[in-house]
Amino acid sequence: MTEVDVVVVGAGLAGLTAARALRAEGRTVRVLEARDRVAGRTAGGTLANGVAVELGGQWIGRTQTEVLGLVEELGLTTFPTFDTGQGVTRYRGTVTRYDDVTFGLSFEAALEAGRLQLELEKLAATISLSAPWTSPKAAELDRRTLDEWLRANTDNAEALAFWATVVPALFSAEASEMSLLHFLFYVKSGGMLDILVGVAGGAQELRVEGGTHQICERLAAELGEEVVTLNAAVRSITHDENGVRVDFADQVVTARYVIVTIPPTLAGRLDYRPALPGARDGLTQQIPMGSVIKVQIAYPTPFWREAGLSGFAFDLDDALSVVLDNSPSDGSCGVLVAFFEGAHARVAAGWSIGERRAAAVASLTELFGPQAAEPLDYLELNWMDEEFSRGCYGGRLGAGVWTQYGAALSAPIGRIHWAGAETAQVWNGYMDGAVRSGRRAAAEVLDRMDS
Amino acid sequence: MTEVDVVVVGAGLAGLTAARALRAEGRTVRVLEARDRVAGRTAGGTLANGVAVELGGQWIGRTQTEVLGLVEELGLTTFPTFDTGQGVTRYRGTVTRYDDVTFGLSFEAALEAGRLQLELEKLAATISLSAPWTSPKAAELDRRTLDEWLRANTDNAEALAFWATVVPALFSAEASEMSLLHFLFYVKSGGMLDILVGVAGGAQELRVEGGTHQICERLAAELGEEVVTLNAAVRSITHDENGVRVDFADQVVTARYVIVTIPPTLAGRLDYRPALPGARDGLTQQIPMGSVIKVQIAYPTPFWREAGLSGFAFDLDDALSVVLDNSPSDGSCGVLVAFFEGAHARVAAGWSIGERRAAAVASLTELFGPQAAEPLDYLELNWMDEEFSRGCYGGRLGAGVWTQYGAALSAPIGRIHWAGAETAQVWNGYMDGAVRSGRRAAAEVLDRMDS
Repeated sequence: MTEVDVVVVGAGLAGLTAARALRAEGRTVRVLEARDRVAGRTAGGTLANGVAVELGGQWIGRTQTEVLGLVEELGLTTFPTFDTGQGVTRYRGTVTRYDDVTFGLSFEAALEAGRLQLELEKLAATISLSAPWTSPKAAELDRRTLDEWLRANTDNAEALAFWATVVPALFSAEASEMSLLHFLFYVKSGGMLDILVGVAGGAQELRVEGGTHQICERLAAELGEEVVTLNAAVRSITHDENGVRVDFADQVVTARYVIVTIPPTLAGRLDYRPALPGARDGLTQQIPMGSVIKVQIAYPTPFWREAGLSGFAFDLDDALSVVLDNSPSDGSCGVLVAFFEGAHARVAAGWSIGERRAAAVASLTELFGPQAAEPLDYLELNWMDEEFSRGCYGGRLGAGVWTQYGAALSAPIGRIHWAGAETAQVWNGYMDGAVRSGRRAAAEVLDRMDS
Repeated sequence: MTEVDVVVVGAGLAGLTAARALRAEGRTVRVLEARDRVAGRTAGGTLANGVAVELGGQWIGRTQTEVLGLVEELGLTTFPTFDTGQGVTRYRGTVTRYDDVTFGLSFEAALEAGRLQLELEKLAATISLSAPWTSPKAAELDRRTLDEWLRANTDNAEALAFWATVVPALFSAEASEMSLLHFLFYVKSGGMLDILVGVAGGAQELRVEGGTHQICERLAAELGEEVVTLNAAVRSITHDENGVRVDFADQVVTARYVIVTIPPTLAGRLDYRPALPGARDGLTQQIPMGSVIKVQIAYPTPFWREAGLSGFAFDLDDALSVVLDNSPSDGSCGVLVAFFEGAHARVAAGWSIGERRAAAVASLTELFGPQAAEPLDYLELNWMDEEFSRGCYGGRLGAGVWTQYGAALSAPIGRIHWAGAETAQVWNGYMDGAVRSGRRAAAEVLDRMDS
């Protein structure tokens, strides 16, 4: 098909749900994917023992209704993330077990971290999700970084260390690298911090049997090979009042509309003819991707469970800073999933894989005891090196970007529409937001075709 | 020539001086330029009355020895920027004339602005120009924005308003949009603030008869049409241990090395095969270009001179914030050059050209009196809309970028070398820095070819 109603750039969750929605209304679609696989920032991996793990996005929360509905509709099944037992937190060399809301912090630090959360959520409640730049005091919230706000609002070193782990856990970026407004928008977009950070009742509550990348694989299978083209890196988008022409890998497809679903920083690299307005280009110059190396460490058994531990850990001391139990639902082996995030990821990217494995195993041994020292397998993906993502989990907006460029984030330009997790109002940055954005962009295009 | 020693991407000052240095050592070179003209961020324009003006970079300071030497070598002549008489500053509706170091501020604000300058320059003196990330307290200076520092160090509203005009005058960006470390590096790179801001004795001291774009035009003429190819937007750079292959506009040129001189944000958009490491890509995701619309307003005579005014103005109230006398050296007419910069430029870009002209003329009338209300001509260039610059004056580094990515700014990757004003240690961001960077990159490549 070299002439369709709509070309979709990118076969991740946003692109494939957009294509599906368009097809459901009888429109012809072509999805162009640069990689040799679908699924974008979700990706399947296999441990040496054959157990499937996710190298990318993996958890789904109960309030992520769009992606959850899609999972069910596609015949995939979910199961709860293991979350029984105590969490552990390491701070200044001391590992603390906890089973309350303190996250293992000292009483004073836990109170202070909680107070900061309440203050931030009071501010977050004032943010407009549809147009953050119109929120009360938007300019003031946008000129400051989250880091500045945190330092101005506490001098409790332990509470600051906790936030310095939580923020990269959510953004794969540091508090100094985003505006306060961006943080507040993102927090409200996902339903506030307890939900963003939580396992049971939170964004990490559910897993998908066999992996979340199957969502995209099933969507692509449903669309068929004639619709979804792999190894089709788009080179240029030529557009005028009559239609669009998309050039990829020495081929061409023409359409009435195009939906670009790749992250803004990558969307900005395409060759648009005519070139896009300065406001759109300036936006894409200023939404860098987060930095993360996601690692899976396999053991014969989930030994931490016998010790009364849930597998959840925050390490405030070391580069491998967040850990969760990622064992298969049948308990056939133990798997811990952990992250080098933000500044840690940028440092760890300079190490060899052997060095990263050694650092990870050393951290896990501190957190979970000597049994962690002898893993069966170590599997990792450095998302910064992925040519067609160039970082995860998503793009963030630094000081001044929302208020000066936010309106360009999803505003169509001629026949070019924009989707992707970064454009979502609800669950921005998450799989659920990606699905919502794909459906929103498809609805925009359908509206125009109907009128 | 489809097989040369070195391909240079970009025919601005960096690219053409690199090519010239390579040719001087007997190497074969091909310079590929995306535009239909050379000269990059310098560009010639002509007023309705035939007078030549610069739409881009125009001034040269005495300490900018590299570009100044080049100007002389190429047979161009300089003349002093008109700088006789009083400057004017508008703040909260009051226009103040001054001929001292106060910039027309109140006594208290002038003292406070000066104290801040001294404090900043004390910090700037500690910065390493060759490796800013190794400077004492680099991490602390880099996690904060300049805006945070300014607000933390004064509550004098007038002094803050002054700084809120000076910073965009230097960067076409706001103080919240760059790290304190970046500001300090830049200030030291140009020889501290009096030189950066000054006319006589400063970076605005000299002009080039006929315009600075002639530097590149003469360099290109010297190299010849066989060397410099216009309309040659590079699409991909394929590189391995044996050499490079550069694809552009359906043509191909192979070489031993390539020097990429375009701004980092544009360099990041090229298709590298194999793809570049994450650290380099992450860097180019985080050096957005400044925002500026440069305007020239022509009058029958430089009438402000008769009123004892130099033509130099800071407007702390309105969008058109910085003005200088840009009349031709023969005084055949009067020209004021002025700038919409940073946040002002992003707002003004949303106006029509008629609205910008009206706003500019209204501001000039406030600053220089009713004679400013009747211009002969208005000429502007919105650099944000320039597809092959995507902003001016240059790229800036936000919080965290220098310390985490700075080492990737000019480090060669295989046979790919980097130049451009953003990579300069001395006069970073200026024409002089561009020349220095081109010569530095050429020297790197010559070194490798000789060894």
